[in-house]
Amino acid sequence: MISIHNEPQPTDLGDVRVANRAVVLRHIRLHAPCSRADIAARTGLNKATVSSLVGELIDKRLVRETGLTENRVGRPATMLVLDGEPYAALGLQVDADELVAVAIDLGGNRLLTWRRAFAAATVSPAETVRALAALSRRAISRVTAQGRTVLGLTVGVPGLVDPAGAVPLATALGWQDVPVAADLRAALRQPSFAVGADTVANLAALAEQRHGAYAGTTDLVHLTGGISVGAGTIAGGRLLHGARGLAGGIGHLRLDPTGPTCFCGGRGCLTALVGLPAVVCRLLPDADADGPITDYLPELERIVALARQDDPTVLSGLAAAGRHVGQAVALLADLLNPEVVLLGDHLATLAPWLLPAARATLTERTHAPDAGGCRLDASTLTTAAALGGATAALATIEAGRLPAR
Amino acid sequence: MISIHNEPQPTDLGDVRVANRAVVLRHIRLHAPCSRADIAARTGLNKATVSSLVGELIDKRLVRETGLTENRVGRPATMLVLDGEPYAALGLQVDADELVAVAIDLGGNRLLTWRRAFAAATVSPAETVRALAALSRRAISRVTAQGRTVLGLTVGVPGLVDPAGAVPLATALGWQDVPVAADLRAALRQPSFAVGADTVANLAALAEQRHGAYAGTTDLVHLTGGISVGAGTIAGGRLLHGARGLAGGIGHLRLDPTGPTCFCGGRGCLTALVGLPAVVCRLLPDADADGPITDYLPELERIVALARQDDPTVLSGLAAAGRHVGQAVALLADLLNPEVVLLGDHLATLAPWLLPAARATLTERTHAPDAGGCRLDASTLTTAAALGGATAALATIEAGRLPAR
Repeated sequence: MISIHNEPQPTDLGDVRVANRAVVLRHIRLHAPCSRADIAARTGLNKATVSSLVGELIDKRLVRETGLTENRVGRPATMLVLDGEPYAALGLQVDADELVAVAIDLGGNRLLTWRRAFAAATVSPAETVRALAALSRRAISRVTAQGRTVLGLTVGVPGLVDPAGAVPLATALGWQDVPVAADLRAALRQPSFAVGADTVANLAALAEQRHGAYAGTTDLVHLTGGISVGAGTIAGGRLLHGARGLAGGIGHLRLDPTGPTCFCGGRGCLTALVGLPAVVCRLLPDADADGPITDYLPELERIVALARQDDPTVLSGLAAAGRHVGQAVALLADLLNPEVVLLGDHLATLAPWLLPAARATLTERTHAPDAGGCRLDASTLTTAAALGGATAALATIEAGRLPAR
Repeated sequence: MISIHNEPQPTDLGDVRVANRAVVLRHIRLHAPCSRADIAARTGLNKATVSSLVGELIDKRLVRETGLTENRVGRPATMLVLDGEPYAALGLQVDADELVAVAIDLGGNRLLTWRRAFAAATVSPAETVRALAALSRRAISRVTAQGRTVLGLTVGVPGLVDPAGAVPLATALGWQDVPVAADLRAALRQPSFAVGADTVANLAALAEQRHGAYAGTTDLVHLTGGISVGAGTIAGGRLLHGARGLAGGIGHLRLDPTGPTCFCGGRGCLTALVGLPAVVCRLLPDADADGPITDYLPELERIVALARQDDPTVLSGLAAAGRHVGQAVALLADLLNPEVVLLGDHLATLAPWLLPAARATLTERTHAPDAGGCRLDASTLTTAAALGGATAALATIEAGRLPAR
């Protein structure tokens, strides 16, 4: 039985049919075109089981028969390939100044990427859920109009998210005990698909594992930037969620007891030192002269422009931020020993100026020789969390669950 | 299924027979007595595959047929149960002042627990390997004399251990690039079983998951005490090893930039604050008056006696150590969200005085509400790493590999 990414291994034998379905799907993905007999021979499953599973998969249009047959002695065997084009999934992402929607098909192709300006931290959770629902409805209409069925939707939130898709705490948004998945499900009025939620960091890590420059890596960390810094970890090929789904909290690691106050109430937290609002406020002290910032992109572009002009204040501020990033990454490297830590969001945008100091600190601060082999790089994905949300929404199919329709 | 260092999980379909064997073994463990037909019906494997796998398992004396038959219509079915009593495995552990050997049978029963005074940090790695080999040979003779076959041996080292069982760095022992598993294998002269190595923290975590007070928990951390502090993590039911097997490094987390110098060269590392040598030197300044300490147990007993007498210096020193433990545990709780963190070795012995401050710091320092549900407790296991080593040596069988004999 094979371990499926992002889906805990079967733990009792009642799950065997689902697991076997996943094995069949995986076999077809890796070896298509292939026959039912091939699958039975290579997996050890009996032919009746394989035929029954393939029948379901064809019925659900996850697999289709090709016109091809195998050249061999005896009755020609019909060859199977993955289908999946009729299916899509949606990922959403709440960030400092925008909502993002991404749709992909079962093959991982992006069908749409939409960004909508929205300052979630300045409005109520209910308003944010309404805006997410409106964005989802438009995206679903678009995808449905293309003849595709939406299989699921996962929203990424910068905060803690439990396995039920509720947010016990998202200090960056001012949220406490917000059942975001349930509220979004209710706002969408009886969607025919599962609506889930996870942290932006976890979803971004999933996107890295499937679609990023280090795709296929079994041990990686995506460090989200934006409004709140968090760590999404793929360990041994699977997302690390923890006992209550709350793993990944590194944003409030206290790096500097004399550092700036964080919105969590602590001092010198990683988020208060290198989060997007913190970096903008530190490097552009005039940025909020006209009132609270609701759109960080122009400010980030100003910082990039100043850095390109070798502005000494900005360069030294970015080097300091890089050292703080390096301290956090050193901790992740020693504790989790990932192959790579990828910086996302504004940390990726600012990577040319952050990475030199961050890498030097990583090497200096890790106990393992050569940082345990851990590399530090900028993510090459855009809207990684939303992409990961769509990927997560498809993972149940890959793990052997059937679409509901 | 437990993933261990010298045995990665099956990742392609060529490993299916091994995986299916593990499924059959697991089914028998959970549902014995059961028949071959039961196994086929419940796992989806075909009867011929089940019969062939069961045949191998009986042949290897991992499973046996009982005299029982099932009451049902038709030909009576022979019932199967796990055997495993003929098999044992050995775990070794290198600590500050002793070597430990534990043997268990396939059912997890302890066959022997031996401790031998030995100050590994004061001798060469080669001498330590010779002492480990001598201890192993005696333990193997004893187990073999009982009519059992030794299936494997895993040694726990307080340091970094790679998947090949080599130690790139164990600062507490003064080791660098010591291929301990290979050297021990050579010293044992053609053992008929696999010889592996892992960190004491990883092996202790495995022992907790199988044999500890929180056995069966899918997300736990064992924080080793002794000569070097390390974290062994079970995440999602599996040991977290990282990309190069070097995960678990928390001993050199810098908690106090003005703290004592660590043997790693840093200042205020967790190990320099709460490791056994550090605690003894701080609380018993006269302990090394007669030269370097090679036996910490009497010193630890003195500390316990003083704490029981409410010695104010010792109590305040232990409370300070408890706060440092709490800071490290808070980090583990936010990042990994385990159900429980268990303190091992001298941290367990001193737990009555460490835990109050450690728990308060855990609650105060975690960002997740209620520390994300993470509990902090003392381990109830003795010689946890050696027990985990023996457990790890059996995991290959449970994962479906057959004994070599």
